[in-house]
Amino acid sequence: MHVVVMAGGSGTRFWPVSRQARPKQFLNITGGQPMVVETCDRVTSLVSDEEIILIVGREHLNETKTLFKGRDVHILAEPVGRSTAACIGLGAVYAAHLGCQRPVVFMPADHFIAKPAAFVESLKQASEIASSEAIVTLGIVPTRPETGYGYIQWKEERPDFWKQKAYRVVAFVEKPTTDKAKQYMLRGDYLWNAGIFVATPKTILKALERYLPPVHQGMMRLVSAFGAGGFENQLEVVYEKLESISFDYGVMEKIEDAVFVVPCDCGWSDVGSWESLFELREAEQDENGNFREGECMLIDCKKSFVSSRGGKMISCLGLKNCLVVDTQDALLVADMKKSQEIRRITEQLKLKRRNDLF
Amino acid sequence: MHVVVMAGGSGTRFWPVSRQARPKQFLNITGGQPMVVETCDRVTSLVSDEEIILIVGREHLNETKTLFKGRDVHILAEPVGRSTAACIGLGAVYAAHLGCQRPVVFMPADHFIAKPAAFVESLKQASEIASSEAIVTLGIVPTRPETGYGYIQWKEERPDFWKQKAYRVVAFVEKPTTDKAKQYMLRGDYLWNAGIFVATPKTILKALERYLPPVHQGMMRLVSAFGAGGFENQLEVVYEKLESISFDYGVMEKIEDAVFVVPCDCGWSDVGSWESLFELREAEQDENGNFREGECMLIDCKKSFVSSRGGKMISCLGLKNCLVVDTQDALLVADMKKSQEIRRITEQLKLKRRNDLF
Repeated sequence: MHVVVMAGGSGTRFWPVSRQARPKQFLNITGGQPMVVETCDRVTSLVSDEEIILIVGREHLNETKTLFKGRDVHILAEPVGRSTAACIGLGAVYAAHLGCQRPVVFMPADHFIAKPAAFVESLKQASEIASSEAIVTLGIVPTRPETGYGYIQWKEERPDFWKQKAYRVVAFVEKPTTDKAKQYMLRGDYLWNAGIFVATPKTILKALERYLPPVHQGMMRLVSAFGAGGFENQLEVVYEKLESISFDYGVMEKIEDAVFVVPCDCGWSDVGSWESLFELREAEQDENGNFREGECMLIDCKKSFVSSRGGKMISCLGLKNCLVVDTQDALLVADMKKSQEIRRITEQLKLKRRNDLF
Repeated sequence: MHVVVMAGGSGTRFWPVSRQARPKQFLNITGGQPMVVETCDRVTSLVSDEEIILIVGREHLNETKTLFKGRDVHILAEPVGRSTAACIGLGAVYAAHLGCQRPVVFMPADHFIAKPAAFVESLKQASEIASSEAIVTLGIVPTRPETGYGYIQWKEERPDFWKQKAYRVVAFVEKPTTDKAKQYMLRGDYLWNAGIFVATPKTILKALERYLPPVHQGMMRLVSAFGAGGFENQLEVVYEKLESISFDYGVMEKIEDAVFVVPCDCGWSDVGSWESLFELREAEQDENGNFREGECMLIDCKKSFVSSRGGKMISCLGLKNCLVVDTQDALLVADMKKSQEIRRITEQLKLKRRNDLF
């Protein structure tokens, strides 16, 4: 079995800690290690390091090599970002190149999982189903009527030959309104789409061939380059022309045959905002519901997130639902409820051409 | 006429900008200049620089000399702080030493005055009354039922020989409760005690002789040292033994004879907290009632005070009634309503022996 860890994305939702050139998968926002390392470590009971294929943006290649020094993970660098269809295609041809014919797990490098054992168990289940040329997704059991995630609707079936807890997918659904999200919770046949897929390289490539032929053709050109030695050059030529399209949109939403979902209750979060990070680190909160990191003094504060990452002591007095993040060169103070709107700050910084800060 | 500017106090109410070793009179919190400079500049229409006697703590002597380089103000350094009775005594004997027999203004270096012309006018009135061996205080016309100030109760009189707007003082009153403060506002015969006195050196020394004989004796020893050259040594010897007592408590509250008050409506503030500073700089607030200083970006913020003094850009999102002050080595984020409780932070810093930060 192989695991493809997709670490190519960029984003500044954790500004001022995350920056354009320093996306969250390379930050240690969920614990002691950068998320990309935690993501790889999470599957070590499932695969050895040599069975991990890590796909990063070229600008992060050196940093990644440093992070994984002494480990045998395969590291591939995308010359430019081309969304998940290309990345999954690349992972599939590379896994095949390594001789893998068994199911491969494709997963983002910037998610948090509170219960890794449950997660690995679900991957094993998914893998068994995926052996039969199916594409299997993990469907996260919703814990709230979240409007920030896509959903997967399933249909109950009990196919004898599996004896697995898995369902046939009826539809992939875009981010819903609040009303719809509440309905989905009540109905119970909707799961969160975590963007985690399990399938054999062959199945992935067949799906690309059918639904995204240009991406498939690009990947085939890479296959011929593996032996010839000019892989990196060819990767650049191929990626330059590739369409940037997500695997969900380009393949999963269009596919009509065998797509299955394994429900998974593993404390998953895509960690999309400071507020969601605050919530998932609940166990580390003090008796007043405050999370603190680095040197800080909190007096009469409630439900606040205070992070000192610039070496400076932060003193807080009488705060409530407040987000304070200090780094070497920038400071954020925000109402926690507004943490989804951080982009309003980074957009301003972009307009002001403060390239040093975003 | 002479003016004694008392700049010896220390305090950390404007932490993290003010520190034990850097009290607010040496900071530029109210505008472009350190408060001690603004205080002296405020009376330049009344006296020349040679008629200003500036009394500072010894630890601030060099800084003061630098601030007043090229100006002829007299600068005296107290070896230790001994509250206002000693400081006013020192100012009185020094003014007498300079040949002054006319009334002297004694005033703190760390007050803000929005209408300096009205202030100077009141000092002139007070000075005329003080010529006749009276001690005259300025009484600030209250604009709110403030519980943080002492009050002066007056009794209406119309002595013919003055034709001045001045009243005989009935009592000096300690900081009142909220109920009492409201009563004082309604009655109209209570004014705020700003700690600003006008009296001749002779009158001051007579009052000290009567109510604080040890302080008076100390001052007399200084007088004999003026000619002999060993003034600084003698100052140290005298101050070492002096009681630390305020002029209000030691003299004004006990005095039974001629004490008068000149009501003054000059936009006075003792600038006792970040909140009071925020209020008195109202004119500089933006359309959402925010005050900003240094490089900062405010999005969806209301009635907040954001000061960047450490060279770092501060980004604020969705704040309300919030106080954010960043300096080179410390950061404060507080509910504006709690700005009177800053000492809770500095006390903690003291306990933690963070001498670098308080």
